[in-house]
Amino acid sequence: MAGSDTLTALDCHDIRFPTSDRLDGSDAMNPDPDYSAAYVVLRTTGGPQGHGLCFTIGRGNEVMAAAIRSLAPHLTGRPAPATAADLAALHHDLTHDSQLRWLGPEKGVMQMAAGAVVNAAWDLAARRAGLPVWQFLATLTPEELVSLVDFRYLSDALTPGEALALLRAAEPGRAERTARLKAEGYPAYTTSPGWLGYDDRTLVRLAREAVAAGFGQIKLKVGANLDDDRRRLRLARDAVGPGVRIAVDANQRWDVAESVRWMTALAPYAPYWIEEPTSPDDVLGHAAVRSGQPVKVATGEHIANRVVFKQLLQAGAVDFVQIDAARVAGVNENLAILLLAAKYGVPVCPHAGGVGLCELVQHLAMFDYVAVSGTREDRVIEYVDHLHDHFSDPVVIERGRYRAPAAPGFSARMKPASLTAYRFPDGPVWRARRTQPDRPDAQEVTA
Amino acid sequence: MAGSDTLTALDCHDIRFPTSDRLDGSDAMNPDPDYSAAYVVLRTTGGPQGHGLCFTIGRGNEVMAAAIRSLAPHLTGRPAPATAADLAALHHDLTHDSQLRWLGPEKGVMQMAAGAVVNAAWDLAARRAGLPVWQFLATLTPEELVSLVDFRYLSDALTPGEALALLRAAEPGRAERTARLKAEGYPAYTTSPGWLGYDDRTLVRLAREAVAAGFGQIKLKVGANLDDDRRRLRLARDAVGPGVRIAVDANQRWDVAESVRWMTALAPYAPYWIEEPTSPDDVLGHAAVRSGQPVKVATGEHIANRVVFKQLLQAGAVDFVQIDAARVAGVNENLAILLLAAKYGVPVCPHAGGVGLCELVQHLAMFDYVAVSGTREDRVIEYVDHLHDHFSDPVVIERGRYRAPAAPGFSARMKPASLTAYRFPDGPVWRARRTQPDRPDAQEVTA
Repeated sequence: MAGSDTLTALDCHDIRFPTSDRLDGSDAMNPDPDYSAAYVVLRTTGGPQGHGLCFTIGRGNEVMAAAIRSLAPHLTGRPAPATAADLAALHHDLTHDSQLRWLGPEKGVMQMAAGAVVNAAWDLAARRAGLPVWQFLATLTPEELVSLVDFRYLSDALTPGEALALLRAAEPGRAERTARLKAEGYPAYTTSPGWLGYDDRTLVRLAREAVAAGFGQIKLKVGANLDDDRRRLRLARDAVGPGVRIAVDANQRWDVAESVRWMTALAPYAPYWIEEPTSPDDVLGHAAVRSGQPVKVATGEHIANRVVFKQLLQAGAVDFVQIDAARVAGVNENLAILLLAAKYGVPVCPHAGGVGLCELVQHLAMFDYVAVSGTREDRVIEYVDHLHDHFSDPVVIERGRYRAPAAPGFSARMKPASLTAYRFPDGPVWRARRTQPDRPDAQEVTA
Repeated sequence: MAGSDTLTALDCHDIRFPTSDRLDGSDAMNPDPDYSAAYVVLRTTGGPQGHGLCFTIGRGNEVMAAAIRSLAPHLTGRPAPATAADLAALHHDLTHDSQLRWLGPEKGVMQMAAGAVVNAAWDLAARRAGLPVWQFLATLTPEELVSLVDFRYLSDALTPGEALALLRAAEPGRAERTARLKAEGYPAYTTSPGWLGYDDRTLVRLAREAVAAGFGQIKLKVGANLDDDRRRLRLARDAVGPGVRIAVDANQRWDVAESVRWMTALAPYAPYWIEEPTSPDDVLGHAAVRSGQPVKVATGEHIANRVVFKQLLQAGAVDFVQIDAARVAGVNENLAILLLAAKYGVPVCPHAGGVGLCELVQHLAMFDYVAVSGTREDRVIEYVDHLHDHFSDPVVIERGRYRAPAAPGFSARMKPASLTAYRFPDGPVWRARRTQPDRPDAQEVTA
């Protein structure tokens, strides 16, 4: 009875991991994150469910959950086959609800909520098609792909006709690139050595391990103290040798002049890019940073929507576009961003890490290779090696590359046991922590 | 025992008015708003409470309430006198919570939530001082005012030293301008005639009434249909005569090229400004619209933070800066924006209307006149004439001007009876509507 399959409910779970215990994920702006997910399940009467998530770093995950639940009236009662067949309609309904739009528009909590739900619907649609999302996308015609994009506010930079031409130009090589991707995977880089809370010994050990594991690029967090950054960069360079790229990431710590000064000082250590030097809203600021010092500029994980990415490209403000699977309004908006980047010839190097972000974003980078940009040149997907064990179809990294997912869907389904154990505030992990007040962060995380 | 006065709780009320019944507030992007407020009360053990609010247009008001409640741990237990004496510290704690910041950063739901709480704290502080907020601000020294501003990401456009110089230059005239403000009020314009859902007869009648009431400027909503816009502009011009300014407002309806085309077509009717021609995130787009057609450009009610305002000014993208009291992170962030506008010599014409926005923003414009820009030239505060009766100290408009508030606080305290009656979803007004399913919007508003 697939024809009568209907979306009956949108469930949202507040899932948090106590990662601040070990300073995993620590950087200049985020000293003690508890990696979390507002986790969405689109329940159906018959066919596959859709799962998605939005990543947060702890407090406020309940706000994301409220935002996701506010979208439920757009989902419940919707026929699953028609929803899967017209994901542009769902994306439009979620991002253009005239009352909810006031809370953005198209940014922050509501945009991330729309993204989690849109991605859950893509998971559902890909499972109905029996394909992983990257491959499901790559089966769509250029016309179908263009119809998925909301071109509102983009036409001064990219028209539907230009997008169609880009996609058609990439069409002939799809089959060959799909085969290469399955055989070779997609290049990754790793941030695991570089968290700001790690001591020098840990940094050096993890940097060596990264090279031994086959990574051609690592990333260090910077921005708290210039002398520390110099020392850590030197240690990392000594550990990895001259042939491995070392990117650095300031997590929005600086103003424009400070970015220029700091990166001029770090330039002798040959950092590959400086990521998030300043506010993600500051298009003109990024342009000034890019022209003011010699290191390439990357940003994107906190860029709110396609309109800001458009301007970063128009202004020549970035050397790398770092899409995030769960920050903008899902696959549809990321498709717009991939097309914008292709139009401007800027490589896309996705942000990942967190909870489930590697699992999700690998699909977008692989689709980009097969059907949009047509190349992996100068492109790498971020990789961080924690929390993958909570997913039933986790990413697989081999010799510094992501293996192309083969299972149907979006790879971001959490194991039922993890959903139970880490439920906040009443799952067993959090209940146990409240009874151990001597743990250093027990007060913090239960506040 | 004022010395022991402590903040004991942050209450948040979900208040909604069924304004969609009459198409009050209707425009090209918001066809049927139900004007709403996530209303904050900072409760104390002894001294005055602090009240604040965030305006929404209906659905999603519960998400705002969740966001406001997520800030409660920063408030409860805080000494009221110390909080009132260091509002920069509170503003910083709310906008730089390292985990909550991920949900923005500094934009959308979380930024509006911070704004509601910050403004409630300003209400509390001004009441402790026995002054209306505008006058309380105008008693602060230039050094104290500069210390209230978060200059992060601003230094390429405005340094603390430049801000101090601006404020010192305006200091000598404060007493004289305060006296003039009390005697003369502050110029207003009215949007009441121009909602898109009103028929021509209503438009003409209300336009004539506005002129008769002393307004020197009105505003019409545009952007749904060019022929309609032409006809409505002509009717309005005939009704008000050549000496009254008619601004138009597209509420983000257009892309860049469409903005230019549409406003070129409307230019013969001499609109005073075009407001929100396109996405509020599109700095470069606004610059292109401003240079591409002859009508002056205004925006701001949906600008997420000081960083985007900074760029609009750096890029020469706007002729008028339209601050909103409840969109950014409260008085502190609006103080940054007023200083930026003063530095660039761009007039501030605040957005208002909604629920309580007139009550709040009048204080900021009046403070700007007394202590920042020092002028009312080319400046007007928006005025819309509904929902004021729910406030205990509502705005007073006389001969097209806002009268300077005299009562202590921020003027945005709702009457207890209104808080009870319009509570969503369980207040008597909403309960009654659910039992009258033949009302056209009953389904909609209870969805």
